[in-house]
Amino acid sequence: MRRRKIRRRATRDPSQLIKAEARQLFNCYAPIEVLGESELDLIHDGSMRILEDIGLEVLNEKALALYEQDGARVDWDSQLVYLDRERLMERLQTVPSEFTMHSRNLKRNRLVGRNAINFTPVASAPNSSDLEGGRRTGNFEDYCNFMRLTQGFDIIDFFSGYPVEPVDISPATRHLDAALAAYTLTDRSFSLYCLGGGRVNDGIEMTAIARGVDRETLKKEPSIITVVNTNSPLRVDGLMLDGLIEMAENGQPTIVTPFTLAGAMCPITLAGALAQQNAEALGVIALSQIVNPGTPMVYGGFTSNADMRSGSPAFGTPEYTKAALASGQLARRYNIPFRSSNTNASNCVDAQAAWESQMSLWGAVMGHAQIIKHAAGWLEGGLCASFEKFIIDIDMLQMMAQTLQPIEVNESTLALDAIREAGHGGHFFATSHTLANYTTAFYEPLVSDWSNFETWSEKGGLSAYERANIIYRQRLKDYEPPEIDESTKSTLEAYVAERRDELESQI
Amino acid sequence: MRRRKIRRRATRDPSQLIKAEARQLFNCYAPIEVLGESELDLIHDGSMRILEDIGLEVLNEKALALYEQDGARVDWDSQLVYLDRERLMERLQTVPSEFTMHSRNLKRNRLVGRNAINFTPVASAPNSSDLEGGRRTGNFEDYCNFMRLTQGFDIIDFFSGYPVEPVDISPATRHLDAALAAYTLTDRSFSLYCLGGGRVNDGIEMTAIARGVDRETLKKEPSIITVVNTNSPLRVDGLMLDGLIEMAENGQPTIVTPFTLAGAMCPITLAGALAQQNAEALGVIALSQIVNPGTPMVYGGFTSNADMRSGSPAFGTPEYTKAALASGQLARRYNIPFRSSNTNASNCVDAQAAWESQMSLWGAVMGHAQIIKHAAGWLEGGLCASFEKFIIDIDMLQMMAQTLQPIEVNESTLALDAIREAGHGGHFFATSHTLANYTTAFYEPLVSDWSNFETWSEKGGLSAYERANIIYRQRLKDYEPPEIDESTKSTLEAYVAERRDELESQI
Repeated sequence: MRRRKIRRRATRDPSQLIKAEARQLFNCYAPIEVLGESELDLIHDGSMRILEDIGLEVLNEKALALYEQDGARVDWDSQLVYLDRERLMERLQTVPSEFTMHSRNLKRNRLVGRNAINFTPVASAPNSSDLEGGRRTGNFEDYCNFMRLTQGFDIIDFFSGYPVEPVDISPATRHLDAALAAYTLTDRSFSLYCLGGGRVNDGIEMTAIARGVDRETLKKEPSIITVVNTNSPLRVDGLMLDGLIEMAENGQPTIVTPFTLAGAMCPITLAGALAQQNAEALGVIALSQIVNPGTPMVYGGFTSNADMRSGSPAFGTPEYTKAALASGQLARRYNIPFRSSNTNASNCVDAQAAWESQMSLWGAVMGHAQIIKHAAGWLEGGLCASFEKFIIDIDMLQMMAQTLQPIEVNESTLALDAIREAGHGGHFFATSHTLANYTTAFYEPLVSDWSNFETWSEKGGLSAYERANIIYRQRLKDYEPPEIDESTKSTLEAYVAERRDELESQI
Repeated sequence: MRRRKIRRRATRDPSQLIKAEARQLFNCYAPIEVLGESELDLIHDGSMRILEDIGLEVLNEKALALYEQDGARVDWDSQLVYLDRERLMERLQTVPSEFTMHSRNLKRNRLVGRNAINFTPVASAPNSSDLEGGRRTGNFEDYCNFMRLTQGFDIIDFFSGYPVEPVDISPATRHLDAALAAYTLTDRSFSLYCLGGGRVNDGIEMTAIARGVDRETLKKEPSIITVVNTNSPLRVDGLMLDGLIEMAENGQPTIVTPFTLAGAMCPITLAGALAQQNAEALGVIALSQIVNPGTPMVYGGFTSNADMRSGSPAFGTPEYTKAALASGQLARRYNIPFRSSNTNASNCVDAQAAWESQMSLWGAVMGHAQIIKHAAGWLEGGLCASFEKFIIDIDMLQMMAQTLQPIEVNESTLALDAIREAGHGGHFFATSHTLANYTTAFYEPLVSDWSNFETWSEKGGLSAYERANIIYRQRLKDYEPPEIDESTKSTLEAYVAERRDELESQI
């Protein structure tokens, strides 16, 4: 009750909040399709047979009851749910094909659907690293610095997790500090851990305060997102489902991402891996629609392959890229927004980190993922959030965004007059067409160094990693906090203070 | 005359030559199309207007006469050729839509056309580098080592230039040494500099010897390739055209690649850059068909952008990638095989080198380039051939090849039995399906290290650059020369010895 009172003090005055440039990235090119229609049918059929015959292990009694009430066959002893395809397909009918993620800065509202693309930073890394400090356990200072860096780059649309785990602050109240930092250091929509009802409720409350809306309004305006990972194969965690149910009751979107690592947690063949991924994702997404038909949901694809020599996960591999492209086809088949990632398994910010990231990004972008998670800063298969990799990824994301801008073809861009003016064997540096267009003609890189070898050597011969380090430090120095009205800020702080007292008294 | 006699001593015994695995890479996915039909029409129309109204400066009297005899308007004072679109389109009708590059090892014969992809190594770099030796002027030892490395990787289909310029051997006879090394250290089809008739003839003669065929047969079997770069804007070098004419007379393919660096050698807008590239490429390709209708030719696309601050070329940029995809559409419009590249402008083997390469590769592969030049080893915008980058590129090319293998979907790959066997929350490492498939299921990388951070650190914490160095040195140690029959080898050596005497006596 107290909480509701506090929230009402917050007001929304968009005029004070709007500053950043509106930008929604769209992919105007057709997706790359790696599966034919009949192959898609076979994978679909395989996943339906998995749900009908093998079943999904659901470690949550409330969820089991919901499935059962909806007509599914539930074996309460084994906690297995068997879903038949007709009912499942009917449930999926109510998943919105698109929704808007609302932010406290309305210019950051983002479409999740159609050919929109949204980039979200690295999430849930237990470690962080930079050149000077090396690799360390995740901490709140680094967490806040990733928030600050994110705020400086329009290419990042919203969050879908904590960039790095702030292990140095109390786990009981960490979610409060994390949300407060996110809502004051950035103007992006945030995310919460899908672990149990209490934390989810805090996240939703703070989001309502940050946005200056009541919870009824929030129910209609998705504003905070979460992720449910299945414990593949075919097992779903109980706490996560508590969270999912609460998110669904509040109309907030959940990304359901099976962790299908081929050869380890699913079949070693991509067809089997995709069928299992599809079964797990659709089976859990269906629950959200039983709870609250029309709740926005996202189909997460994360299928990759294990290194069969060590068992460790590999990322940005050919198999990963094909799975991302195929997952996009599956998600489109069910008309559900699709989430992919920017991954790599490198242990340092070297060429491998870049080529695996590029393989992932092309799979995600040309698979028409509407949310590309871990888009900036992910290293070591997600075990480390790297500040330098964050900057390099920003450059790669911006390059990708520019690549997706169609070529403008008209009399002016054909520039035949400039060709005449330059003359045979001449040059274009000084033509009037060049002078009129040179400031905006090309993407200007953040990290790429195009000097010749001599100049580059004289400047110190720095690698992209070293240059990214300089850029990240400078960006932190140049950080400008987003506008936030004082009452919103103090309401958020008051909420956190009160909840901290409550939670600490429970320990 | 003497030469012809020597050649006849060579015999072709394919049974002795065939050892390597046959492999032709195909791209089964649809190309990415960045231009709509009407935009393609506009660029086509722009390039036709360039050729009709602005003209092509052709610094070669023989070529001017050929154009004129064919009905083109020639201004002999300015050396400008004006080509009207009807005649030009008619000339292009005879360009084969596909051809086979023949090698002395028949298993290395490669299709250039349809959805085939061929990778050729870095070409014409003036410098070479590796970790220990640093950057140095190109030399014959490094040239031979690039030959040896190439021979060890099936992913490289043939050559389209000298990987590095062997500056330490005499320019007068360098082409003889280069060809002899290529034909004895590798079994791939080779390439020659398109500079004047004499060298071209030597290249063709040596190719006939290496293949054990006479020149009449060779005319019908493309076996050696060359590149003509235009001196953009709209100027074509005289010596290169001598070479092109001789290549065409001998039925050997030439890649025509305008060097259209937007903002420097062509308009700063991509539409204008592409229209000019198209005009230059088609104008020169037409000449080959006047000389010898049906000569195989390749449409080269190399449009990139200049760094407008320094004027230096940038590669693997968003503009570069879009231009590659658009160039593929243009080449397909005229039904001419398309050549693109794997480029980057980095000065060291770092993340930038990798992400710019990946941007190039995706543009080339999804632009359906049938020849991807500079596919392995290119650094510094082509000014350096790097041994480590060569190895990293091989890994990236092999990954791309694996990405292009369609996902097999059938009852066995869906693996529902394996899912049952693993059980809910179980693992797949020991399922019979995994055990039956684990050795071939996934691409096994050359350079990527997927160890966890601790293991990787214990192994020395090596970057991809350092690991590639170890691999390249080991590969050179493990080098196995291809089979070549003794009479072919001695005939080649005799030819080189005699021609060397002739050329040295002319100095």
